[in-house]
Amino acid sequence: MVKILIGYASDYGTTKKMAQAAAEGVTSVKGCQALLKNVEDICSEDMTSSAGIMLGSPVHMGSMDWRVKKMIDTVCAELWMNDMMNGKVAAVFACGGGFGGSGGGAELAMLAMLSNFAELGMLLLPLPKKINYYQHGGLHWGPCGRSGDANMKNVGVSSAVIHLTKQHAIHLAKTALVLANSDIFQN
Amino acid sequence: MVKILIGYASDYGTTKKMAQAAAEGVTSVKGCQALLKNVEDICSEDMTSSAGIMLGSPVHMGSMDWRVKKMIDTVCAELWMNDMMNGKVAAVFACGGGFGGSGGGAELAMLAMLSNFAELGMLLLPLPKKINYYQHGGLHWGPCGRSGDANMKNVGVSSAVIHLTKQHAIHLAKTALVLANSDIFQN
Amino acid sequence: MVKILIGYASDYGTTKKMAQAAAEGVTSVKGCQALLKNVEDICSEDMTSSAGIMLGSPVHMGSMDWRVKKMIDTVCAELWMNDMMNGKVAAVFACGGGFGGSGGGAELAMLAMLSNFAELGMLLLPLPKKINYYQHGGLHWGPCGRSGDANMKNVGVSSAVIHLTKQHAIHLAKTALVLANSDIFQN
Amino acid sequence: MVKILIGYASDYGTTKKMAQAAAEGVTSVKGCQALLKNVEDICSEDMTSSAGIMLGSPVHMGSMDWRVKKMIDTVCAELWMNDMMNGKVAAVFACGGGFGGSGGGAELAMLAMLSNFAELGMLLLPLPKKINYYQHGGLHWGPCGRSGDANMKNVGVSSAVIHLTKQHAIHLAKTALVLANSDIFQN
Repeated sequence: MVKILIGYASDYGTTKKMAQAAAEGVTSVKGCQALLKNVEDICSEDMTSSAGIMLGSPVHMGSMDWRVKKMIDTVCAELWMNDMMNGKVAAVFACGGGFGGSGGGAELAMLAMLSNFAELGMLLLPLPKKINYYQHGGLHWGPCGRSGDANMKNVGVSSAVIHLTKQHAIHLAKTALVLANSDIFQN
Repeated sequence: MVKILIGYASDYGTTKKMAQAAAEGVTSVKGCQALLKNVEDICSEDMTSSAGIMLGSPVHMGSMDWRVKKMIDTVCAELWMNDMMNGKVAAVFACGGGFGGSGGGAELAMLAMLSNFAELGMLLLPLPKKINYYQHGGLHWGPCGRSGDANMKNVGVSSAVIHLTKQHAIHLAKTALVLANSDIFQN
Repeated sequence: MVKILIGYASDYGTTKKMAQAAAEGVTSVKGCQALLKNVEDICSEDMTSSAGIMLGSPVHMGSMDWRVKKMIDTVCAELWMNDMMNGKVAAVFACGGGFGGSGGGAELAMLAMLSNFAELGMLLLPLPKKINYYQHGGLHWGPCGRSGDANMKNVGVSSAVIHLTKQHAIHLAKTALVLANSDIFQN
Repeated sequence: MVKILIGYASDYGTTKKMAQAAAEGVTSVKGCQALLKNVEDICSEDMTSSAGIMLGSPVHMGSMDWRVKKMIDTVCAELWMNDMMNGKVAAVFACGGGFGGSGGGAELAMLAMLSNFAELGMLLLPLPKKINYYQHGGLHWGPCGRSGDANMKNVGVSSAVIHLTKQHAIHLAKTALVLANSDIFQN
């Protein structure tokens, strides 16, 4: 079995709901199992035993949630130092209030998470525009939920975004299966 | 009179319409005049004779339009080399199809333009969320028009975005007036 | 007196050393005083009572330190919500191992901090290339210390970077004095 | 045979030299052939007939060269519209004066190119730190040449960077072979 780690932080449950959809997506792929964890509970072994990682964060002040970054600094940095994750595959998603209707800072938030995975030597999985429902929550870096409306009222995450996130996780699982046992970075 | 240069590229006229609103905004500020130019017509003297610059670009494939970049490479690079723009003030805006509803790559497009202005030693003007109509086309880096709908049909730019862009230009003009004759970067 | 807040996180003391140089720079400007604080000790009132803010972070895994982000999420987010910081001025600096000799991720780390300040409606101060010693630790987004050598040995931060950081703080203080009592963002 | 397209723009020949090393790397992988082209000569068919693409750019004013962006806007945008590149693999490299010693804007330049490839639905290949010579020109987004010294004198690109770029191309070719005939993005 190929294991995929789904990590998330969540304030009001929307990012968590996206993470749960991702776990369902992984489980639906034959030969893959999901490990769904709040970032505060992720340890090194969760990372090293997984063939792929999907990380989701609330968007706060134009970048990722501090709890996600704490996990990166305290868990991933050592894996980077010891070259433990090279050649695995990574994907990200985000959820924010989206005030302004222009992404609300989701792009830099997702890039900061992808930066960590690039440092770890992991292939980065994009979200192609042809995926169903892309028009209702897609960004090329990954699915983007929007939990707030134009009055900053929390309206939860749409079913379209849930679908997109599940699909993104299916792609991640499939990619991990394809890459398994390949040894791209020999030196 | 303090001169503000408004530069733009445009495919279907939406970014140009935003640029025209910006020029109106500048003109409405006492003591300021606007120089509105397609990027293909901008020369060094347009830059050096201006106290502030506002640059707008269509969003293509997640970054700025190539014509905007050509102007930067062929006009701004030499001004950077000769330290000609330090201490002036800059602002940006963008307009894209916005497919996906998550900004569609506008953030990196705007950051690439801001990167040029930071290289030039210019202060960067943000768009505060309290500005009227921010909820209908605001990003902290500047106003973001969206010209396409969920079916990629061109629907033009909204009056809210036009208002935001005009207001952003007013702030730029006011900032240029405040900074005029200050000499922040003496060494 | 105009107050400038210098915030930092530090692992081995290099980012702190840069912060101390920044505080010296602020103090050297007539009419300005520095408030030097570890990010873990910064409260809302430190922010609102300051005319300018300079924030420095270690670079970890291609973005800012989680403690800096925690301060942003827990202190700045509320100030954003209540429009408390508009029109002030911000600057950033960073220090990392710099393995690879190509910045080591400092650029996205600095942009993530600047993203927070843009959200807060603050003007962003660049580091012009003409500043003395720029060639030994300058990036247009701010001073960049490098604490590691090509063998990942900690070699501390150079006197050139210390000089650059002090100078950047002087510019910040001067800008805060120029902007004081201007009211750029009236609506 | 699996074909890998190597595209580049070049001012003084350094980025071209890196591109030539990349082509050599591809050719050294059994079953792979390289198509080396100046971006000004790249057509749609070069892209669609390739299993992987490596794109290199000079760094100008903190982002990619305008000629590279022109190719993206005029060639890639249509391929995005028609979903022609999904599931292929992409990598980038850059070369700049590097004045300041902190990357000189290479990171945003590389991210802008990667943004295009993410839009195209292509997997993004990182540069792991364990690769030989990483310490002399590596960034997690790809190899970074530095052609200028601290006095802005053109000193050409180092043999370490040439080696890194060749190695990056080998990884790209290997990844393309592994991904060939997989169909990750079915919907």
